[in-house]
Amino acid sequence: MTETAQSTVSYEDLIQLEQDFDDVDLQMIRQQYALTKPLYSKRQDVIAKIPHFWALVLESAPPEVDQYIQPSDSKVFADCLNSIEVSRFELDQEPATGHPRSFSIKFGFAPNEYFEDTVLEKKFWFRRAADGWTGLVSEPVKIQWKKDQDLTEGLTDAAVKLWEAQKKQTGASNGKSKEKKLPEYDALVKKMETSEEGTLSFFTWFGFVSSREYISAEESAEANKAENEKREKRANGVKVDEKPEEEEEDDKEFELGNEAEVFPNGDELATLLAEDIWPSAIKYFTAAQEDDDEDLSSIDEADIYEEEDGDEPIDIRSLVGKGKKDGADRSPPAKKRRT
Amino acid sequence: MTETAQSTVSYEDLIQLEQDFDDVDLQMIRQQYALTKPLYSKRQDVIAKIPHFWALVLESAPPEVDQYIQPSDSKVFADCLNSIEVSRFELDQEPATGHPRSFSIKFGFAPNEYFEDTVLEKKFWFRRAADGWTGLVSEPVKIQWKKDQDLTEGLTDAAVKLWEAQKKQTGASNGKSKEKKLPEYDALVKKMETSEEGTLSFFTWFGFVSSREYISAEESAEANKAENEKREKRANGVKVDEKPEEEEEDDKEFELGNEAEVFPNGDELATLLAEDIWPSAIKYFTAAQEDDDEDLSSIDEADIYEEEDGDEPIDIRSLVGKGKKDGADRSPPAKKRRT
Repeated sequence: MTETAQSTVSYEDLIQLEQDFDDVDLQMIRQQYALTKPLYSKRQDVIAKIPHFWALVLESAPPEVDQYIQPSDSKVFADCLNSIEVSRFELDQEPATGHPRSFSIKFGFAPNEYFEDTVLEKKFWFRRAADGWTGLVSEPVKIQWKKDQDLTEGLTDAAVKLWEAQKKQTGASNGKSKEKKLPEYDALVKKMETSEEGTLSFFTWFGFVSSREYISAEESAEANKAENEKREKRANGVKVDEKPEEEEEDDKEFELGNEAEVFPNGDELATLLAEDIWPSAIKYFTAAQEDDDEDLSSIDEADIYEEEDGDEPIDIRSLVGKGKKDGADRSPPAKKRRT
Repeated sequence: MTETAQSTVSYEDLIQLEQDFDDVDLQMIRQQYALTKPLYSKRQDVIAKIPHFWALVLESAPPEVDQYIQPSDSKVFADCLNSIEVSRFELDQEPATGHPRSFSIKFGFAPNEYFEDTVLEKKFWFRRAADGWTGLVSEPVKIQWKKDQDLTEGLTDAAVKLWEAQKKQTGASNGKSKEKKLPEYDALVKKMETSEEGTLSFFTWFGFVSSREYISAEESAEANKAENEKREKRANGVKVDEKPEEEEEDDKEFELGNEAEVFPNGDELATLLAEDIWPSAIKYFTAAQEDDDEDLSSIDEADIYEEEDGDEPIDIRSLVGKGKKDGADRSPPAKKRRT
């Protein structure tokens, strides 16, 4: 520990490097998407013939995902979830000018007792804010709940109502300014206060907007333009004035935490669904089958013990026949344990 | 829940699909390696000028990695860790017939008071066992500890000794048969029994061999040949006799757990180092700088409280100057908290 701190490296060198890596990442996402698209389409055909495939996959999801799935959500999945489909919709458009990190998750349902919808699609846009923040934003999805069946206890409806009111107020799709003055804002925050933490339905996720604030396509396009100009300067060795009011921004970040966000980690859950559950679905399905092969008596007891909200424990694994072990290359996922 | 289980899909269809996906994965690893190689080389040049870069990166590593780093390990890193380098060495060879998932992690050290080595390189080979298991295996790396400085308390030495004895016994590099009869085996297991769990030095990881058993290059080549023949049959619609003695194999798997493995999750730690710490090093470095920007008084107290083994708490962050925020695209890593 005798060395002293003598760095001759500027932060701009590091930023430049990270951007070069990011460019490769984006290129890889594009290419992987193109290469795997026909495989995913083939996989859809195969797994469409397996009843409860996606319910079983979600049953053996890792704790990071499983923590958001309540027993009543599992029941809906076991009853009527027919399909899940992930697409990088901004790459499917012509011209493909959108961001490779944007994606959509589409849930297909059989007609059911819970809601009228047979498709619930949630889109996530990868956008850049004026202050440099980048991340996923979404729009609340309206779920047509049947009478007394709303698992989100009005939260998704309230999120949609606030969204609509904001659109009306600000015009177009920029739904953030002055939002605190809207009665729909107060209504949503009040509803959130009365909802019990840790018992939030998975379906509340359809109401997610942003972990911070909504960024419109226009704001993002402008921010990207400014960012690209900075990059060009940097590449040409011109000194870029990076974030002049740093300290103030720190404070701003705290203020920006979205008080009216019904599902605060919605972007994280979306990423786990798109980048783990979706590509590894067969692996999780196989793991569920293997769990079924084991003597489950002790696990079942634990499951029953943990389900305290009166719902019947559901063993959807028993609905599907036993299978042989998977001999494929991928290593098996960690066994699922409820957290 | 009225549907009955009527799957017309064979497990072979699923295995075939997984293999197709795996082929794309391998192709992507090759390509990403080629595309990022010049960037990593540029990065090495830049970060070589930043004192304590890698020590700071490891300080802000996520809990999955941090749990293996003891305060005395941190002290070694802060004192003399100069570089970390990850390479997919089987892709660097000519002809590149090796596996894209094999990799090496090379640690460079300044001359120091702990050991004679200035380079400690650990290689991981991705191999297939005769029974279909695939995963990473390694060979114990000898560390030339100076007098009374062995942080692993003789564990890496004992692992190397067992390894050498097994090689002598079985010839070549197939170090597994009859291993239980060797006195070196008993010596290692006995040493492991007296070492305290949860206080294992990070450096013990250099003694890792396999989470199950060592697989030689020859065994892996034969298993891959058999696997490829099966794949070809499957692709031609010929029924493949998949794992005829399934039940017995289940039992065998339990027996195969490696009692003499000095660092049972060594393959997982290696994967985290190669696939998270290495590509995200600048991100973690920046996070460490940002931690430094915050008021650390409360965190420092907690750190001291948790370090119960008499080692002094080390604040290597204080060795490096403050920096500006990173404006790059990648989202910041989760803040590090000791688990």
